[in-house]
Amino acid sequence: MVNWFASRRRKRVDAPRLRPRSTSTTNSTKVDLAELTPGLGDYLGKAAYLQLMIFENLGRAVATAPTMRAKTALSQAASLSLAKHQGLVREIERHGDHPSDVMEPAARAIDRFQSATQGSDWFEAVTTCYVTAGFLDDFFYRLAGGLPGGSAERVGHILGGPSGEKIIAEVLLAAIETNPRLSARLALWGRRLVGDTMLVARSALALSANHDSDEARIEPVFTELIAAHTRRMDALGLTA
Amino acid sequence: MVNWFASRRRKRVDAPRLRPRSTSTTNSTKVDLAELTPGLGDYLGKAAYLQLMIFENLGRAVATAPTMRAKTALSQAASLSLAKHQGLVREIERHGDHPSDVMEPAARAIDRFQSATQGSDWFEAVTTCYVTAGFLDDFFYRLAGGLPGGSAERVGHILGGPSGEKIIAEVLLAAIETNPRLSARLALWGRRLVGDTMLVARSALALSANHDSDEARIEPVFTELIAAHTRRMDALGLTA
Repeated sequence: MVNWFASRRRKRVDAPRLRPRSTSTTNSTKVDLAELTPGLGDYLGKAAYLQLMIFENLGRAVATAPTMRAKTALSQAASLSLAKHQGLVREIERHGDHPSDVMEPAARAIDRFQSATQGSDWFEAVTTCYVTAGFLDDFFYRLAGGLPGGSAERVGHILGGPSGEKIIAEVLLAAIETNPRLSARLALWGRRLVGDTMLVARSALALSANHDSDEARIEPVFTELIAAHTRRMDALGLTA
Repeated sequence: MVNWFASRRRKRVDAPRLRPRSTSTTNSTKVDLAELTPGLGDYLGKAAYLQLMIFENLGRAVATAPTMRAKTALSQAASLSLAKHQGLVREIERHGDHPSDVMEPAARAIDRFQSATQGSDWFEAVTTCYVTAGFLDDFFYRLAGGLPGGSAERVGHILGGPSGEKIIAEVLLAAIETNPRLSARLALWGRRLVGDTMLVARSALALSANHDSDEARIEPVFTELIAAHTRRMDALGLTA
């Protein structure tokens, strides 16, 4: 795994431009990544295609759910991710572009990420939905602050909207309760996932020529994103 | 295939209790199946689980779509089916029941139907979404007229709401245009599908001891449902 935090700088960029997400307000001030936000099309293509990926993964988890309760619960989570995807698609259309053209450049890398994170069974697949959706919603939400014009607020509103996080956590908790031996395996899987997820997130940043200055911006944000990831794993009783 | 129309009776039951669906008003008077509507729980469990099945199938078609345009289009259709599922889930909850308990009795037969109609590739799978969603939305819409109290109108509203039919038709048309040899195979597949779909639909009816009287009610409705199916296949340039 790449060491994101090689830089020693701890200067925080305290410039939250969007209202804090109701789901993750435990950590005092939010830092954002506005200075590293890529161009609008680039951002929207990646964010929309990632939401579509999350939806696909959840759809698969719905289809293969071992219990009716899990199926019903996950279909709700799927619909919330799909709503985010559709919101971003509408934002793309608002700028006069065709969603599939804008998403196309992002497809290959994200398809690779998706296939590397499928997991070996349903439990790992659901953990993937939980970990990647949590991390990436959060990441793209922070990155949205740097979008031009009204896009920042609209996209922030879409990505800060209701998520299926609690629903998925309950499904996983129930599975772990039924079969406590899952814990070790899912904790391990979560650790691998967060590494891959951070790589995908990082690749969405528009880095400048000034490596040190970029790192100074990235570091505090990833520190918070990882803290949020740790809380999500805690919620399952798993070590991050 | 079962011969649905063995009975010679042609007496129509002209009692449409719900507003006609905007998508299928070509055929003069709509007949409904109100007298054969099963109990509310039975109806809602089957209808909700079938919408979930349609959503799962569309979700799979999204995940395996060969082009980004198809992926984007089908994700819209998936969201419309999911909205119907969720509307029916809310109707179940409104009556104080847990959706998964109400859907459970329907699961086995519908899971079997789903696995028998997966198709051998993406094109057949998308045709399955098109044919089964079209037929079953229509069928359960007509059956809704016999539900008690406000459920008839609410459920009719849910099932008569926007559908992904046109979106899926465009995806299939584009595929057939690109590869005209698909036509024969998909026409054949459509014929097999409609037989299986009619069996699932028929099994949702609350039949009385009076076989002749039931058939007299069923026949005109299935005649219309098959006419609508034929129009759907026509829209793809395929023979039903």
